[in-house]
Amino acid sequence: MRFAASIVLLCVVAISSQAEDVRREVRFPDVPGYHTLACDFHMHTVFSDGLVWPTVRVREAWRQGLDAIAITDHVEYRPHKDDISTGHNRPYDLARSGALAENVLLARAVEITRETPPGHFNAIFIDDADLIETPDFVEAIKRANEQGGFVFWNHHEWKGAERGRWLDVHSTLYDNGWLHGMEIANGSSYYPTAHAWCLEKNLTMIGSSDIHAPDLRRENTAAEHRTLTLVFAKERTLDALQQALRKGRTVVWFDDQLIGRASLLTSLFHCCVQVSAPHFRAKNYVMAEIHNLCAADIHLQRRGDVGPSQLTLPALSTSLVRISTDRPDEALQLDYEATNLLVRPASGLPVTLEFAAAGAE
Amino acid sequence: MRFAASIVLLCVVAISSQAEDVRREVRFPDVPGYHTLACDFHMHTVFSDGLVWPTVRVREAWRQGLDAIAITDHVEYRPHKDDISTGHNRPYDLARSGALAENVLLARAVEITRETPPGHFNAIFIDDADLIETPDFVEAIKRANEQGGFVFWNHHEWKGAERGRWLDVHSTLYDNGWLHGMEIANGSSYYPTAHAWCLEKNLTMIGSSDIHAPDLRRENTAAEHRTLTLVFAKERTLDALQQALRKGRTVVWFDDQLIGRASLLTSLFHCCVQVSAPHFRAKNYVMAEIHNLCAADIHLQRRGDVGPSQLTLPALSTSLVRISTDRPDEALQLDYEATNLLVRPASGLPVTLEFAAAGAE
Amino acid sequence: MRFAASIVLLCVVAISSQAEDVRREVRFPDVPGYHTLACDFHMHTVFSDGLVWPTVRVREAWRQGLDAIAITDHVEYRPHKDDISTGHNRPYDLARSGALAENVLLARAVEITRETPPGHFNAIFIDDADLIETPDFVEAIKRANEQGGFVFWNHHEWKGAERGRWLDVHSTLYDNGWLHGMEIANGSSYYPTAHAWCLEKNLTMIGSSDIHAPDLRRENTAAEHRTLTLVFAKERTLDALQQALRKGRTVVWFDDQLIGRASLLTSLFHCCVQVSAPHFRAKNYVMAEIHNLCAADIHLQRRGDVGPSQLTLPALSTSLVRISTDRPDEALQLDYEATNLLVRPASGLPVTLEFAAAGAE
Amino acid sequence: MRFAASIVLLCVVAISSQAEDVRREVRFPDVPGYHTLACDFHMHTVFSDGLVWPTVRVREAWRQGLDAIAITDHVEYRPHKDDISTGHNRPYDLARSGALAENVLLARAVEITRETPPGHFNAIFIDDADLIETPDFVEAIKRANEQGGFVFWNHHEWKGAERGRWLDVHSTLYDNGWLHGMEIANGSSYYPTAHAWCLEKNLTMIGSSDIHAPDLRRENTAAEHRTLTLVFAKERTLDALQQALRKGRTVVWFDDQLIGRASLLTSLFHCCVQVSAPHFRAKNYVMAEIHNLCAADIHLQRRGDVGPSQLTLPALSTSLVRISTDRPDEALQLDYEATNLLVRPASGLPVTLEFAAAGAE
Repeated sequence: MRFAASIVLLCVVAISSQAEDVRREVRFPDVPGYHTLACDFHMHTVFSDGLVWPTVRVREAWRQGLDAIAITDHVEYRPHKDDISTGHNRPYDLARSGALAENVLLARAVEITRETPPGHFNAIFIDDADLIETPDFVEAIKRANEQGGFVFWNHHEWKGAERGRWLDVHSTLYDNGWLHGMEIANGSSYYPTAHAWCLEKNLTMIGSSDIHAPDLRRENTAAEHRTLTLVFAKERTLDALQQALRKGRTVVWFDDQLIGRASLLTSLFHCCVQVSAPHFRAKNYVMAEIHNLCAADIHLQRRGDVGPSQLTLPALSTSLVRISTDRPDEALQLDYEATNLLVRPASGLPVTLEFAAAGAE
Repeated sequence: MRFAASIVLLCVVAISSQAEDVRREVRFPDVPGYHTLACDFHMHTVFSDGLVWPTVRVREAWRQGLDAIAITDHVEYRPHKDDISTGHNRPYDLARSGALAENVLLARAVEITRETPPGHFNAIFIDDADLIETPDFVEAIKRANEQGGFVFWNHHEWKGAERGRWLDVHSTLYDNGWLHGMEIANGSSYYPTAHAWCLEKNLTMIGSSDIHAPDLRRENTAAEHRTLTLVFAKERTLDALQQALRKGRTVVWFDDQLIGRASLLTSLFHCCVQVSAPHFRAKNYVMAEIHNLCAADIHLQRRGDVGPSQLTLPALSTSLVRISTDRPDEALQLDYEATNLLVRPASGLPVTLEFAAAGAE
Repeated sequence: MRFAASIVLLCVVAISSQAEDVRREVRFPDVPGYHTLACDFHMHTVFSDGLVWPTVRVREAWRQGLDAIAITDHVEYRPHKDDISTGHNRPYDLARSGALAENVLLARAVEITRETPPGHFNAIFIDDADLIETPDFVEAIKRANEQGGFVFWNHHEWKGAERGRWLDVHSTLYDNGWLHGMEIANGSSYYPTAHAWCLEKNLTMIGSSDIHAPDLRRENTAAEHRTLTLVFAKERTLDALQQALRKGRTVVWFDDQLIGRASLLTSLFHCCVQVSAPHFRAKNYVMAEIHNLCAADIHLQRRGDVGPSQLTLPALSTSLVRISTDRPDEALQLDYEATNLLVRPASGLPVTLEFAAAGAE
Repeated sequence: MRFAASIVLLCVVAISSQAEDVRREVRFPDVPGYHTLACDFHMHTVFSDGLVWPTVRVREAWRQGLDAIAITDHVEYRPHKDDISTGHNRPYDLARSGALAENVLLARAVEITRETPPGHFNAIFIDDADLIETPDFVEAIKRANEQGGFVFWNHHEWKGAERGRWLDVHSTLYDNGWLHGMEIANGSSYYPTAHAWCLEKNLTMIGSSDIHAPDLRRENTAAEHRTLTLVFAKERTLDALQQALRKGRTVVWFDDQLIGRASLLTSLFHCCVQVSAPHFRAKNYVMAEIHNLCAADIHLQRRGDVGPSQLTLPALSTSLVRISTDRPDEALQLDYEATNLLVRPASGLPVTLEFAAAGAE
């Protein structure tokens, strides 16, 4: 690739007549009533302190199977400004045509970036990023809201003596209805306090990559994935996405954990984990298969009397399970805790696996 | 693992109360009216010239996502007989309890093994392997049939001056209705003559691994898989499997090719390849996504005037396609040949990709 | 592969005129005065409770880069004896020609297999396995010794009320000089007590796979390897190997740990870890590269005042290290503990990394 | 990572006290008298039509085991100039401190970029990139030379009616001694004409990635690597590198081919391929091992009467070879052509493998 390489790469769809690259979907099933969208609302480009051109963020998202992203360059922190001095809307404007062509939902966004307190806040779904630049922090957040922006507090435990504390300025935002969510996970960090606050204050739980460098991942798997937000949206559109975020319909995929409200996790669990009727019934046990249809491993700890004490259901795999029972022909209910599906900090989701009686399948 | 290791390994399900290992399904979708079963009906153990205990073949099948196998040790060729002299039913008898527990369909079988001509023939779904051992080759095949066996001719191009020829003895079998199929692929070999004969003589097409050594594969993927037979069965049972074989409802997965009758390949293609309505409509082109839901890559060559001249749809991935058109809002029909879905030797399957008009999705 | 497959596989070298397969060496460098041989002295075949033909063990060893193995089928435990009733020398006799052709050192061996106590003991480098079969346990060990056998106690913590205890019978063997080593690691288990006893009683430390099923690994890497014994031998011969074992010149590679006597570990460490002179010297720090030439990751914890508090040196990789110092032009000595190179249970190896002064490299 | 992320990433070594990331060396052995340096002298950043910040190119090089790179942004083609309008020296100036800290040799460079003819030319080892910008093409090349630049013609077959032709303007450069090399491979393209011209006109053979997007590769392997130039330099310094380039001491690693002058390829071959004395001598054949110590597979075709007709020596592996001979105790010489070590277009390197006589090893 040479002279016209940027044209090839920036506008790849306009001059190629062949299928481009390959996309590997983030594998989580839809749930009843909603599409499950894999989203990352926090990332940077050369326009602030990131290391890639904005179009790269769209290509990465497409390749890795993401449905929606926001490019959130810092408004107030621009270490490359000697070389790049254009406005805050440029990253979105440059990335937009590729996003349309590649079917990646792209929200215009910024990261409002102040010393702690108050800290850093992402405003996504805004209309004009330049208008957000103003010395008064609360005013900046207010303007983001006036544009219809969805605002969340980033990595609140990060940096400075006051880090991790909910102070008056945060109450001001919250009481005005200007703060809608918090990152409960950012990159390789999880914030149990933010997790608890989201439950207590009815804020939307967000998980983000906050990537600055190129993302080398070719897909998102249990072994290696971005910290992501799964959003449960009525349609695969920016409007439906924003509505879902405002309703708090998210599950955060962090490390090997899925974190969210119990109702959503329950719904997701039962779409991911499918139980077959026992295929073999001996005198005092049965054998059955459990299918895990999603990209995350699921770890189960027995709560009741029946079934193995622990079960691991590896991602996108089938597990064989032997269940001791004196009545192998009857239906079985196995009560477990899904220990890596967190409904509160350090609390897993209670689930029941139901196996059919003989002849009932 | 130590003293009781064989108990652990041979009867693993009986003494373990935990999920065993992990199974990765062979990823081909079911087709309307039928389950798509991944099958391998040709493999060996230490009881003839293979190198593993019969139970290993079941574990391999389970791990690799196979639905059904047959262990086909040679009746007449037993190089380990100084050490192993028991009868022809032993491999099946030893493997059966594991197969039941692990939900792998296991057919009792043998390989009738003569110099060429006539060559080697597998008889599967038989009742008593010992009865097949008899000096007269035609008598052996007759006995297999009397037991209800499904008989196919293996690797007919293999070895000897008369290899690859259809001789009187084969006509005898065929005319009596005692020959039901042929291997059109065995391990790394494909036999176009056998492929043509199956079409001409209405024989069932079979693809087999013929493994002798341990199979190191952890799953079956486009990059590395056994030569397999996909069988389209009404249920996932041995009876339904046998019926499907007798009806010729098979597709052979060999290397990067899917080989079968046009109607079955068409049905499979449309379950594997799902086309989204264009997500972006420009003035003179549209952008759309094509999803390949199966484990095989699919290669398309344009037959008509519309669409890219070539498309590769990688396994289990989404491809982005740009389609030039002066009427971007209208429905589009793209005519292609799926060049690696063979309906005859060297002939791909004609397919049509239909993209919805604007507003019609 | 078909009729002659067993010939192909059992005697592969005799009829092939092409390079067979591929071998990936176990990557540990030789140390001064010795060859570093990767060895596994505990594994099973269909002749006791294993699941593969003896030749498979040689092929696995060759493919995975092992230098020496012993097939150690149980003398007293033969669950396949209904099908396989030949003598205890058969596994070695069947595997030997392949081992010669493939350059894998193969020691004739058995596992003497009694209830605990006394437990299970491997006798390797014996002459006639059939002679070991005798009701009296001590007599069996004595006979193994009379044949020149090297005897070690396997997985001493395994099974039974008396497991893990050093009893009179063990003293009898030890006092007679009939017990030469112990497994300090077997498969996924590590035995700190055995480790301590080896140091205290001057027994040779052994690590073994004890594989029964086919080994699916294609090579031995930090991410996935057999439990192995590295033996430091004057030559790559069975004699030199046996001599090295009798002298206790072993290091066990278990999980992510290398376990052995301090002098051997020190020697191995300095052959694996190579330090470059700093390539960049700033005012108050220097930058340097550290090369880890071996297949195991190495974890370092600072003992002194200089250097990063922790360092991980990934296998077969180069790491970049920044060292704060006020005198960047001078030579630097960094004192660390290699926490995963165990000289005693829970004690890592003290090591020093020396970086050259400016102009001295 | 957040506020200070650019500091972390751009100056990573300055504030981290831990080993950074991991580097996997490009595995080609040194040859007698020279260090073998893995180099890529053609790549782009956001300062022309690339998609990454200049520091990314250094990180990629370090991670992938490269010894030296040049960032060669287009002088005359700057599609991002609305956002980035600073001078031609900026990419080097921004990348330099990281290169020093990470021990990656970095040459200041540009790509002089004109319509074909004359085409595109890289000038590397220059002093001031801004001085190269001038309307007169020959003047630009002259200025590069006056700065001590090493100049090579890029992808000469690329684009335009006159592509691939040696015209007067090229003779002007050549006759003045201003043209020192040509790309014989660029990305996924190989140019046999350029290859032939390099031999005929004594120009240095160059292979380059010409990457514009982020490079996702974590290391350079036979399965997936950049198109690279191996340079044989007396030291690992920029001066020695430049001298080696001027002397033409290069081998290009393109796809599965190593391309260079016969003497260098011969030297490299014998450092990569090590032959063991036969470990087994039968009556009419011997068995021996061949070790391939380099990152490229090597394919051998027999030229003489002895040895297998074809041999593949996979990268970083040991191959087993059986050699038929009536005199197994004598020394053996096997004559082959290394078909993927190209000394001219479509001509492999003749090599001889020598196996020692019995007792002579």
